[in-house]
Amino acid sequence: MSFPLEHHVDHQPAQLSDQEIFDAHEGGKLTVTSSRPLRTVRDLSLAYTPGVARVCQQIHGEPQASQRLTGRGRTVAIISDGSAVLGLGNIGPLAALPVMEGKAQLFSAFADLNAVPIVLDKHDADSLVATIAAIAPSFGAINLEDIAAPTCFEVERRLIEKLDIPVMHDDQHGTAIVITAALHNSCRLLNRDLTRLRVVISGAGAAGVACAKMLHDAGITDITVLDSRGIIQKDRGHLNPIKEELLTYTNPRNITGGVAEALRGADAFIGLSRGHVSEQELAGMAPEPILFSLANPDPEIAPELAYRYGAVVATGRSDLPNQINNVLAFPGIFHGALAAGATSITPDMKLAASRAIAEIAAEDLNAEHVIPSPLDGRVAPAVSQAVRMAAARS
Amino acid sequence: MSFPLEHHVDHQPAQLSDQEIFDAHEGGKLTVTSSRPLRTVRDLSLAYTPGVARVCQQIHGEPQASQRLTGRGRTVAIISDGSAVLGLGNIGPLAALPVMEGKAQLFSAFADLNAVPIVLDKHDADSLVATIAAIAPSFGAINLEDIAAPTCFEVERRLIEKLDIPVMHDDQHGTAIVITAALHNSCRLLNRDLTRLRVVISGAGAAGVACAKMLHDAGITDITVLDSRGIIQKDRGHLNPIKEELLTYTNPRNITGGVAEALRGADAFIGLSRGHVSEQELAGMAPEPILFSLANPDPEIAPELAYRYGAVVATGRSDLPNQINNVLAFPGIFHGALAAGATSITPDMKLAASRAIAEIAAEDLNAEHVIPSPLDGRVAPAVSQAVRMAAARS
Repeated sequence: MSFPLEHHVDHQPAQLSDQEIFDAHEGGKLTVTSSRPLRTVRDLSLAYTPGVARVCQQIHGEPQASQRLTGRGRTVAIISDGSAVLGLGNIGPLAALPVMEGKAQLFSAFADLNAVPIVLDKHDADSLVATIAAIAPSFGAINLEDIAAPTCFEVERRLIEKLDIPVMHDDQHGTAIVITAALHNSCRLLNRDLTRLRVVISGAGAAGVACAKMLHDAGITDITVLDSRGIIQKDRGHLNPIKEELLTYTNPRNITGGVAEALRGADAFIGLSRGHVSEQELAGMAPEPILFSLANPDPEIAPELAYRYGAVVATGRSDLPNQINNVLAFPGIFHGALAAGATSITPDMKLAASRAIAEIAAEDLNAEHVIPSPLDGRVAPAVSQAVRMAAARS
Repeated sequence: MSFPLEHHVDHQPAQLSDQEIFDAHEGGKLTVTSSRPLRTVRDLSLAYTPGVARVCQQIHGEPQASQRLTGRGRTVAIISDGSAVLGLGNIGPLAALPVMEGKAQLFSAFADLNAVPIVLDKHDADSLVATIAAIAPSFGAINLEDIAAPTCFEVERRLIEKLDIPVMHDDQHGTAIVITAALHNSCRLLNRDLTRLRVVISGAGAAGVACAKMLHDAGITDITVLDSRGIIQKDRGHLNPIKEELLTYTNPRNITGGVAEALRGADAFIGLSRGHVSEQELAGMAPEPILFSLANPDPEIAPELAYRYGAVVATGRSDLPNQINNVLAFPGIFHGALAAGATSITPDMKLAASRAIAEIAAEDLNAEHVIPSPLDGRVAPAVSQAVRMAAARS
């Protein structure tokens, strides 16, 4: 078992110049092309009029045929209102578009899926649900992205109820799935029992809430969640319904206070906020803690501290080991759900995805490799396969 | 000057088997890919996190930057509610999707634009406008398609008012632009004065109304429009506002009746309906009439009759000469409008497009070639250039 204490203290963020970044975005990052050549009158007659009319009629008579006779069966909409983009907050739809394009690139590169960025000039739940439901026939599945809590919870719930295609808010479930995989492998590496961990989650936004839920589903009983006002606990008052629900399965010892109180004796920290953890607070944790410090670009725990204290350290950064990157989950999950013809993405499918991700890293498990590299090409096919099998079981 | 009387009587529709057509649609007709390689951590860091955050911030501060730092500046949404698809009528969004995909293929093949098919599960004008406006920040321009009249008129008008990107209902204007080009060249070929033609338009749907408007703008004063109830004229009563407006510049002789009465002495017939024209009715037209019989797949005038009577014959079919195909217009129009950074597509830009199309066919003008082949690769660049120059003038 190796520890990264020495050799990662000097990890530095990758230096990307503005010019390089802008060059990589010039003209956008996606290309939409015809899947077949269009060179002859015959090509045109097959793809467009008059041939296409025959396909329209077929689908009119048998709507399910749209899954195979159009691109729907392999097309995912990536939909955001730009209200919670990366760590940048509510920057609006236009400014959110580059993230959605980037995600569409990843869908293509990792799962050979068509993905279409859609940014919405609407922010209330009713309008978001109405707009997304209206455009839904265009797609085989919907990846909600960067929608602020608590609206994101309501929008996802109502769309899942309303539509017969898979809908998943990736900031919630993609993140939770990858974190669960990494935590699972951390326990495997450190010979600890996942279910007996004391886990602290900093952040009660989309990712924090979904992560708490998934870790609870995975059997962890001692989870404490912090929001910007401190530990979420029952006597605090004025909790929204999401946090009320969170309390039904978190904070079993009913502790109060802030980060310091939450971390005292804790085995694992999962940072999904803009919070900051000091050395003193870290020092109060149980020995050899698991530190997932995921805020981007500035992790909650400074890297040099994290590597000094943590037995396993994960971040959200591509320039450090154990990057918790949703790209490990979403391409395979949507690929598997579409391949299975699933009408929703169930907790079982998410758990299967998490296990598949963990298994791949487990082949070469060490403190710098509790989670596969985001570029590991084995992951998406394995996740897709696991999701398809889980869908078939249900 | 050659006439096609002999050598086109035997024109037969292309025989496409269902199997060939379905094969050409299997899995859809579009591919969305990353415009740049995504192989290394550095590639990921540039296209996605953390690099993308810098681009988001830039656009947040300067929204116009989204035109060059995202795909918006070369992305067209093709949006339909499936209420008037080809000649198939109101077949709904799912069944309309293959047409939108086909059109997206053409945008890519002819103008190197990204086009995204969006079909809507909404049919009333308010919902269509609200939904399309909500998703508009995702795109650089909007091509409305296959939306039934009269809703299409209101939806287009309101979106043009509301949005600062080009919006064009192609069934109206694309068709009108290509017809105007073909009619212009027919007159050139036959040594007639366009403005003195008596023109009969069969069909008062999207295409018929727009065509009447554009031909009027081009200087034609004697236009008669027929709907399913016959000639539109002022004493008929119960005309909707669109037809009321049509009457302000059509039917100057206030004639009444049906196709026979309309065609008596007419120089040109433009069929944009499911109507049927008999030999007797044709025989009543002025000598050597211009016959654009555009209904698909069954033209209003049977091909053998059309070639027997017409001095110039055009159809909507890819297996006959002079196909009036919108693909001659829309790729170049949207390409030019986007390249110019235009916020709308003006009558001047449409007229410039029509002239550019006519000029290319004029290089080799004959009765079978009053309009370029839909596969003529010179057309889209010429149209784009003409549209850009017209946009610059205004």
